[in-house]
Amino acid sequence: MSRTSEPGRTVSSRLMELLFSFAPDSPDLSLADLARRTGLPHSTARRLVLELVDAGALDQRPDGRFSVGLRLWQLGTLAPLTESLRTMAKPFMEDLYTALDQHVQLAVLEGQEAVILERLSAPHAVGLVSQVGGRLPLHCSGVGKVLLSHAGRQMIDDVLSRKLRRHTDNTVTDAQLLRRQLEESRRTGFALVRGELTDGADSIATRIMNHEGRVVAALSVVVRAGSVQPHGVLPSVITSGLGLSRRLGWRPGVPIRDSSGS
Amino acid sequence: MSRTSEPGRTVSSRLMELLFSFAPDSPDLSLADLARRTGLPHSTARRLVLELVDAGALDQRPDGRFSVGLRLWQLGTLAPLTESLRTMAKPFMEDLYTALDQHVQLAVLEGQEAVILERLSAPHAVGLVSQVGGRLPLHCSGVGKVLLSHAGRQMIDDVLSRKLRRHTDNTVTDAQLLRRQLEESRRTGFALVRGELTDGADSIATRIMNHEGRVVAALSVVVRAGSVQPHGVLPSVITSGLGLSRRLGWRPGVPIRDSSGS
Repeated sequence: MSRTSEPGRTVSSRLMELLFSFAPDSPDLSLADLARRTGLPHSTARRLVLELVDAGALDQRPDGRFSVGLRLWQLGTLAPLTESLRTMAKPFMEDLYTALDQHVQLAVLEGQEAVILERLSAPHAVGLVSQVGGRLPLHCSGVGKVLLSHAGRQMIDDVLSRKLRRHTDNTVTDAQLLRRQLEESRRTGFALVRGELTDGADSIATRIMNHEGRVVAALSVVVRAGSVQPHGVLPSVITSGLGLSRRLGWRPGVPIRDSSGS
Repeated sequence: MSRTSEPGRTVSSRLMELLFSFAPDSPDLSLADLARRTGLPHSTARRLVLELVDAGALDQRPDGRFSVGLRLWQLGTLAPLTESLRTMAKPFMEDLYTALDQHVQLAVLEGQEAVILERLSAPHAVGLVSQVGGRLPLHCSGVGKVLLSHAGRQMIDDVLSRKLRRHTDNTVTDAQLLRRQLEESRRTGFALVRGELTDGADSIATRIMNHEGRVVAALSVVVRAGSVQPHGVLPSVITSGLGLSRRLGWRPGVPIRDSSGS
């Protein structure tokens, strides 16, 4: 059986904790790192890590550190709405980038965060923290607010019930205000977020619908505050979002629905 | 402990077998599929699958079937030389595509296969079987022969010691001939493969080196047999490969080395 001496921690959960110890800021880890991050005894971590290497989920580098295996990358490409959505979004993102010469991002909801599926970077544009696979907070990023506003009542209540982390002086942390902003985003189809995540970076985001009208992703442009009028950028972001939605099968007249539930 | 009643099958290996049951031709599976593919008793498969869903590695769809979770996609983006290599290769692949209007592929070695990291498809060009994350055989694809020729003596002996699968009438299955072709590929830096994987599809492939001179990937163009002179395509493929290698830090004069070992 997979139960261990620690109630609630199955071998599955331990293995997943080992795997999910890897992160964008720590793509390779030593055995000591892995034991520490998971709280597992060193010998247990060692045994499980070597089993993961055997299976191809992890690789061991010449310096002895471990990294995520290519086989796991391959498996990841099978997750629905990742590679296919990236491929379909590409021409829309490239044209938006060509027209505006600013960062363009595509993100989806995962748990209680926005995950970047794709981004096109303008080398000279404002500094960005996000990279493909990276996470953005739902409450203070452009894609986050769009995704959250269509994530359903339960999710919104959950997120707003927690203390919202302040990233800059502009971060909206008042639940009432944020709730109204989310309603507005549902009404208008976009969110305009000024310097709430990174000082000096404004985000103009819109929703992406699939053929059922479900909001499955968010598309945004991130600009240096003051470099452009956000409202000047907005029409192109909205039309790109509608274009990508049509590519996914959406048509005007198909009611726009939350990402989950009815 | 993670040993089970079947010697040699740890819980880790069972979990990985469940995860690796998913494939490009079967991105979503039922519990019955998973039990059958892994040979696990239904109740065991059910327990482990639900643990994987809990951990975010798998998702359960409304129809009850399972698919790879976004969280696993995210983890996969951390595998070295996947997202970063795709991003760096993109302009080279796009320019090659613009110049030739043919399929362009980027592949890396994984186990004893070539895995497609990226591909740009010409909609009207010859039909292709490969997609991002898909696998190509080493012995009869363009990227495969380039990767195999630089995979080291041990790997070449392993692959050639097995019966080589015949995919078309042209597939080279003679180990001696293939060994000479691999030596030639190491000498010239490219491989030209005519209709050995798919009838009517020729592949012109070249190697990609990193800053240490190690061959880390292969870049190829796939054309309809007879549509172009492969030798007319070759110079652009080679220069694109050298350009991408320079982008990875390689310089002429850095000796080109096998992907592993000394």
